[in-house]
Amino acid sequence: MIKKLVIQYDGSEFSGWQRQNTKRTVQGTIEKLLSKIYNTSVTIDGSGRTDAKVHSLGQVATFECTGSFTEEKLKYVMNNLLPGDIYILDVINMEDGFHGRYSVKSKRYIYKIHNTVQRSVFDRKYAYEYPHELDLEAMKRACRHFLGEHDFTTFRAQGSSNTNPVRVIYDIQIRNKDQLIEIDLLGNGFLYKMVRIIVATLLDVGIHKINENDIPSIIMSRDRNLAKRTAPAHGLYLAEVNYDE
Amino acid sequence: MIKKLVIQYDGSEFSGWQRQNTKRTVQGTIEKLLSKIYNTSVTIDGSGRTDAKVHSLGQVATFECTGSFTEEKLKYVMNNLLPGDIYILDVINMEDGFHGRYSVKSKRYIYKIHNTVQRSVFDRKYAYEYPHELDLEAMKRACRHFLGEHDFTTFRAQGSSNTNPVRVIYDIQIRNKDQLIEIDLLGNGFLYKMVRIIVATLLDVGIHKINENDIPSIIMSRDRNLAKRTAPAHGLYLAEVNYDE
Repeated sequence: MIKKLVIQYDGSEFSGWQRQNTKRTVQGTIEKLLSKIYNTSVTIDGSGRTDAKVHSLGQVATFECTGSFTEEKLKYVMNNLLPGDIYILDVINMEDGFHGRYSVKSKRYIYKIHNTVQRSVFDRKYAYEYPHELDLEAMKRACRHFLGEHDFTTFRAQGSSNTNPVRVIYDIQIRNKDQLIEIDLLGNGFLYKMVRIIVATLLDVGIHKINENDIPSIIMSRDRNLAKRTAPAHGLYLAEVNYDE
Repeated sequence: MIKKLVIQYDGSEFSGWQRQNTKRTVQGTIEKLLSKIYNTSVTIDGSGRTDAKVHSLGQVATFECTGSFTEEKLKYVMNNLLPGDIYILDVINMEDGFHGRYSVKSKRYIYKIHNTVQRSVFDRKYAYEYPHELDLEAMKRACRHFLGEHDFTTFRAQGSSNTNPVRVIYDIQIRNKDQLIEIDLLGNGFLYKMVRIIVATLLDVGIHKINENDIPSIIMSRDRNLAKRTAPAHGLYLAEVNYDE
């Protein structure tokens, strides 16, 4: 039987999603617990990695098991035993063949910016504190250039294992309420650090360091030097992983 | 010269405001830094204590110094050297005789409740996760009984050093937005754990465990057994300290 977990986590105190021998990771913490619950070694397949300090509102992972726990019971047991910075939102029994990573159709990320010179201790781990005035309308117009299928080599960090740099972005929305700005991106997948490099580029448009009309040629250049900056990890939230279900 | 500090802090990792020999406290952390900056032993007078895990949006403390720092310069230096969970919002030069505690005219506290069965890792240190359905209108009506001058012995925890249990509450507001509820209290001062005991009592009104019309007799009883519960510390924010200025 395949079980799908929908997982919320506060990434602040994790060295990212992926299991590592000596570091505290989300995958490692969940696998250790499931191995205890099922009394056998359990590995889980996440929809993808998240970096250290990146948060999740709905990461998905799957695993195979033969246990007799109902969905509700497993959710209850896991949430009682997991540390406070991981919470299982949902446990769902899936058809054979369903896979947390291979079956992904799209992912949504949200990037939170607190746009003020006044720092806040309550944002320091949960939003990027950005002090410069932003031209939000220019940023919104710049978003349109990213939509659709592109080779996103310009917006990809070293260290990615994936070789195909083509991705489709279905939607980018910029919302703001008072000083909080959220950039919401939906795509069929994202390259390593691609969201954070796009966000940094949009911020450069917002301070008129990059002209919105140069975005198409920056994308086409396939030259990371034209999009050098990367927004910090702690503002990023993996919001949603979607499947054909 | 007297300097007034307006201080924001995330109380999660502090053993409260008040200096203690072996524990990490807000007062201790700030005094240690100021003693280094001024190269002499500096003590600060806070407007009052806050307990472990209680947050601040505007705690005030004063200290005497002879240094030549401008207000802006001291704010800048302090914020560069303080840990991320303390932030100095303001430094203001005051007239002689001004005192962080003795000159207080009123204080405002906010208590945050996340009213849902769905837990959130992002609330666990910053709001009280309360799963039961609440009758907010009954709670709002109950607030009115607390207004004005009362002997608040019923709503006072052991461990207070203050002997006079009479306080004046000027205003209590209950706001809600989606599942987030904020209870906002303004008074001339609050006894030890008084805000958290009042909040727990209002929540008991919200689940109809206490009748709103019994509040006056509960206040008059001066019997802590009639208001036994105390809402947890991590939902509480010292919002504002006001002075005649």
